[in-house]
Amino acid sequence: MLRVAIAGASGYTGFELIRILCRHPEARLTMITSRQQAGQKLAAFYPAFKSLVELTFQEADPDRFAEESDLVFTALPHQAAMDLVPALLTRNLKVVDLSADYRFRDPEVYAQWYQPHKTPELFREAVYGLPELYRDAIRKARLVGNPGCYPTSVILAAAPLLKNSLVESGSLIADSKSGASGAGRGVSLALHFCEVNDGFKAYKVGEHRHTPEIEQELSLLAGEPLRISFTPHLLPMSRGILSTVYASLRDGVTAPDVDEAFRRFYREAPFVRLCGDAFPTTLQVRGSNYCDIGWKVDERVRRVIVASVIDNLMRGASGQATCNMNLMSGLPEEMGIDQAPWQP
Amino acid sequence: MLRVAIAGASGYTGFELIRILCRHPEARLTMITSRQQAGQKLAAFYPAFKSLVELTFQEADPDRFAEESDLVFTALPHQAAMDLVPALLTRNLKVVDLSADYRFRDPEVYAQWYQPHKTPELFREAVYGLPELYRDAIRKARLVGNPGCYPTSVILAAAPLLKNSLVESGSLIADSKSGASGAGRGVSLALHFCEVNDGFKAYKVGEHRHTPEIEQELSLLAGEPLRISFTPHLLPMSRGILSTVYASLRDGVTAPDVDEAFRRFYREAPFVRLCGDAFPTTLQVRGSNYCDIGWKVDERVRRVIVASVIDNLMRGASGQATCNMNLMSGLPEEMGIDQAPWQP
Amino acid sequence: MLRVAIAGASGYTGFELIRILCRHPEARLTMITSRQQAGQKLAAFYPAFKSLVELTFQEADPDRFAEESDLVFTALPHQAAMDLVPALLTRNLKVVDLSADYRFRDPEVYAQWYQPHKTPELFREAVYGLPELYRDAIRKARLVGNPGCYPTSVILAAAPLLKNSLVESGSLIADSKSGASGAGRGVSLALHFCEVNDGFKAYKVGEHRHTPEIEQELSLLAGEPLRISFTPHLLPMSRGILSTVYASLRDGVTAPDVDEAFRRFYREAPFVRLCGDAFPTTLQVRGSNYCDIGWKVDERVRRVIVASVIDNLMRGASGQATCNMNLMSGLPEEMGIDQAPWQP
Amino acid sequence: MLRVAIAGASGYTGFELIRILCRHPEARLTMITSRQQAGQKLAAFYPAFKSLVELTFQEADPDRFAEESDLVFTALPHQAAMDLVPALLTRNLKVVDLSADYRFRDPEVYAQWYQPHKTPELFREAVYGLPELYRDAIRKARLVGNPGCYPTSVILAAAPLLKNSLVESGSLIADSKSGASGAGRGVSLALHFCEVNDGFKAYKVGEHRHTPEIEQELSLLAGEPLRISFTPHLLPMSRGILSTVYASLRDGVTAPDVDEAFRRFYREAPFVRLCGDAFPTTLQVRGSNYCDIGWKVDERVRRVIVASVIDNLMRGASGQATCNMNLMSGLPEEMGIDQAPWQP
Repeated sequence: MLRVAIAGASGYTGFELIRILCRHPEARLTMITSRQQAGQKLAAFYPAFKSLVELTFQEADPDRFAEESDLVFTALPHQAAMDLVPALLTRNLKVVDLSADYRFRDPEVYAQWYQPHKTPELFREAVYGLPELYRDAIRKARLVGNPGCYPTSVILAAAPLLKNSLVESGSLIADSKSGASGAGRGVSLALHFCEVNDGFKAYKVGEHRHTPEIEQELSLLAGEPLRISFTPHLLPMSRGILSTVYASLRDGVTAPDVDEAFRRFYREAPFVRLCGDAFPTTLQVRGSNYCDIGWKVDERVRRVIVASVIDNLMRGASGQATCNMNLMSGLPEEMGIDQAPWQP
Repeated sequence: MLRVAIAGASGYTGFELIRILCRHPEARLTMITSRQQAGQKLAAFYPAFKSLVELTFQEADPDRFAEESDLVFTALPHQAAMDLVPALLTRNLKVVDLSADYRFRDPEVYAQWYQPHKTPELFREAVYGLPELYRDAIRKARLVGNPGCYPTSVILAAAPLLKNSLVESGSLIADSKSGASGAGRGVSLALHFCEVNDGFKAYKVGEHRHTPEIEQELSLLAGEPLRISFTPHLLPMSRGILSTVYASLRDGVTAPDVDEAFRRFYREAPFVRLCGDAFPTTLQVRGSNYCDIGWKVDERVRRVIVASVIDNLMRGASGQATCNMNLMSGLPEEMGIDQAPWQP
Repeated sequence: MLRVAIAGASGYTGFELIRILCRHPEARLTMITSRQQAGQKLAAFYPAFKSLVELTFQEADPDRFAEESDLVFTALPHQAAMDLVPALLTRNLKVVDLSADYRFRDPEVYAQWYQPHKTPELFREAVYGLPELYRDAIRKARLVGNPGCYPTSVILAAAPLLKNSLVESGSLIADSKSGASGAGRGVSLALHFCEVNDGFKAYKVGEHRHTPEIEQELSLLAGEPLRISFTPHLLPMSRGILSTVYASLRDGVTAPDVDEAFRRFYREAPFVRLCGDAFPTTLQVRGSNYCDIGWKVDERVRRVIVASVIDNLMRGASGQATCNMNLMSGLPEEMGIDQAPWQP
Repeated sequence: MLRVAIAGASGYTGFELIRILCRHPEARLTMITSRQQAGQKLAAFYPAFKSLVELTFQEADPDRFAEESDLVFTALPHQAAMDLVPALLTRNLKVVDLSADYRFRDPEVYAQWYQPHKTPELFREAVYGLPELYRDAIRKARLVGNPGCYPTSVILAAAPLLKNSLVESGSLIADSKSGASGAGRGVSLALHFCEVNDGFKAYKVGEHRHTPEIEQELSLLAGEPLRISFTPHLLPMSRGILSTVYASLRDGVTAPDVDEAFRRFYREAPFVRLCGDAFPTTLQVRGSNYCDIGWKVDERVRRVIVASVIDNLMRGASGQATCNMNLMSGLPEEMGIDQAPWQP
């Protein structure tokens, strides 16, 4: 039985990890930490866990993590993660980091969009935790940078097109929409119910920090550096991301070429489901680790339009983190995250 | 491995049963029927089940049920259920009926609120499927009438008070609020998104058909016939019921008496969680089979106010039906329905 | 042209007052204050008012109010209101106070539920601003205590019953449900979108501060002191209150007696619309100053069930405050607040 | 006083027209028709209008329209509109048609996306009712084709860019999102509350009928034929459209060029508010006739991203129709539709 701990367990991704792990057949949740809630019982903070999980929030002490666990999920804000992760690795723990701190290959890119990094030497060994791209490397990793929610949805939508050189690499536009849990559980006026309900807006246009993460991975797939327009929007709902991706077809590329690229790329991906031109709704993946993808070649404008849907807390965070834990620990990829979606 | 079938699987309770059963450790879903969708693949109708369930909707043929299954969930409208259930019992199948057709003890009550019954002789053997009241009888039953969603929430809120004669039996008022999935998946203007969203209303005031079902069970608990005011309301959300129950305390009854009654009554109920005066939100049980109950004795008015929350599709329908299947089949009560709630 | 000012204009009731007043035919909004936003342009803070209102938030200086306005709406938290209101009255300004500070007749009741009052001597002249009860007194008042949102909905639902002695005064129960804007614009985890959306809960059961306000007015109507069970709930929507009120009929009272009482009581009330047994939804009054009321006599239990709906920001706050301004200023009661409801 | 009638008044755009017209200072609503509701009182069908509007639905008889009104709003499905409009024009009535039937210049385009047209000869005199483009022509028109909701939002977002040749005309992509009222009040499973709530999806990708309408007007602005990618999405909310428009900048075009183009193009447009890089939310225009527009030049990718927001029932339908009525009747453009937005 794998012993696992969560650092920073009081937010929505922490909740979701606890929810998954308390029913995982081969993992046992042994420790949860939260600076603000230390000393508080989980079931008092989150009554949903009454009679299910008996843990109490603790302070995040590296030695304690080493005593209690084999693998740690760090669900901390960026910067806070890089303060803890090295101490965990030193103590021979495996780490799945849900922050942005270990997703990048180039410290300068990180520095430009976030701030200077304290342990850039770890970048070389950290693996970007998107199983469809790096399954084998994840299996051998001791440090995985769990992908951002938007990047997961955009990369999975565009990967087959770029890998097969079907589209102009400079033409990519990702118009993404996320439910409010993507912004976390911190309080702010912008997340007040009455400011979100029955409304919709774009935010951080042309400057969201998930942009370089998307560009890093899509450039590697394309085999050349590329830039993308990425526009996030806030949906009046709790969970779910839909990314609509537009790209111009290269000359001669046909609809069957596109179909074939998707089918081949995701042949062995248990968590990607292809929908063809039956475009998916976020509801059909809610609560699950699936990424469902629909697409259409529009000959009138010689573009392909792809829409991918994920549950931002599952495939966009805690489900994918569990998948990475499974792979790093020699467990079946789907273990503990194979539940059917919730609808309605 | 128990082989189970669902008659009338295209609605929301059908969806929920399939969702549960496709991951149940000891049951195998072998057959689903739907008059309207017969011939259609489940995954085409509900893309959420892509790659999870390979079944195709069939016509509801009793012989076919007998070949394919040991137990049938009948998720049909009332009247349609009583047309099928006897044929299933004749073929030695066990039945959990989710309609109202086998919830009553008195055919005249059924006739008064619904219509004349065709097989009232089955009333004697049908067991009302609320495990907290009838666990042992359910274990031996071949026909269980699965409780209505509102009655489940109201009966569980009031049972300890009546069983212990703590309140005036004529004083009960249940003010209940349900999410829109409680009305089913049939289309109607009243359920159009724009008619429900951002609005709230009472409906069928003083005449909802769940009233006699509530009164039947509460009368048995009280040991005397009683009547209740029951007012259902429609909430602008998909899942969840909260029932606020008011009752006047008998002379001399104290707050500790009430606390003690709740704790004793639910001592061995794995799916009831007591919250005391930390009143529960529907979110803390969403997606689960729990009924969470909060209460408060208000000395100013000498009343006790109880609020119970359930997920109407789980505890109010398909989760409870699965619990009944477990009990009828000698399986552990919680098997397959012990997942943690979904939040947010 | 009446010159009016708003003290504490940055919250939702402030927004709503500005929205009404910027189109009021006989009032001119001359000044808005906010401690936190002083110096900020309204249109920068609330882009909805771009090109509509040119004002800038100021500090709340009594002399400045006296220079700029004839009447002031104080939309401040309780306690803050009582610090400002006397200074405004001294300067010969009329005041409509939207806090709880001038709604009570008995300083001890206020002290018991809030805190000791600093200017209880003003209680004698302050008028409770519910036009259906105190229209003539409001016309002559210089200080009006604008009713709470819940009390408005409950009092209007119960008044005809008590005034005509049709029900047992000790039997009243008000089960009330409010949209999230009723909690104001202050940020808190409890009002985070993900904590409210798709969920429902009761709160402050048996201890909400609107209880004594309701009891004060209903006791006066009944001609005897009475107590009520009042349970507020939080709805997953932005605007609207529905109160379901239960009362036991006195012996001999019939359904026509109840009908007649409602019709007579509201014969000359332009903002109350009677629905009989066609129970209203909050949507049919959204954005308007109407209170729509449905009711039903349930002979089975000898109770009358009444449901009233209001828009908590209009009839429950700013619309009613404007109505009071109209009456205090000799303007027609409906002026500026006679728009049709918004639906959907 | 202008006498106006509505043909097809039972849907959401009909409701909205009634709501506006019952408070319009210079128009009097004299007649409403509905095939299905003929004979029914408006206030029984829509309780929101109790005590506000006394009308009864009638059959749509051309002679009756001529007797009762000077101008008719035809809020009928396409095809049904073209059956009625000629008969109204013959009787010297002015018509604002809210269907798609009189929005096109080329009968072949209409035939290709809808069906063959019966009165293509009217295309020459029908004016496309977007005041920012055709104010003077609308003033003289007797038949106005009121723009579609999506086209209004997309055309207003892109017009200044194309008119000033700032972007590559083949590069336009419009990713649009609409609340559910845009789909009308007809019942269907796809609009059931539980299918829309908490979910999000694209639909009719690459084939929505608003595409040719957008292309017609943008081509005229660009001075050359152009094609656009237009992708509609369904938002889990009742009202509001946000269109995110992407376009590649022509060489040498700078951010100040774009700013200047927007400011100059909308210098005299009372219903367009420019937000610069403070991107708007749909909430800030809800219930109003405003179109608020934000934009940003992203030098990294040499694109401009524009987001426009409207209320689909107001600016996208009934508010704009009223604006057209005002212009056609010599009334001030803003009359009766100058209310402030509703928030929250």
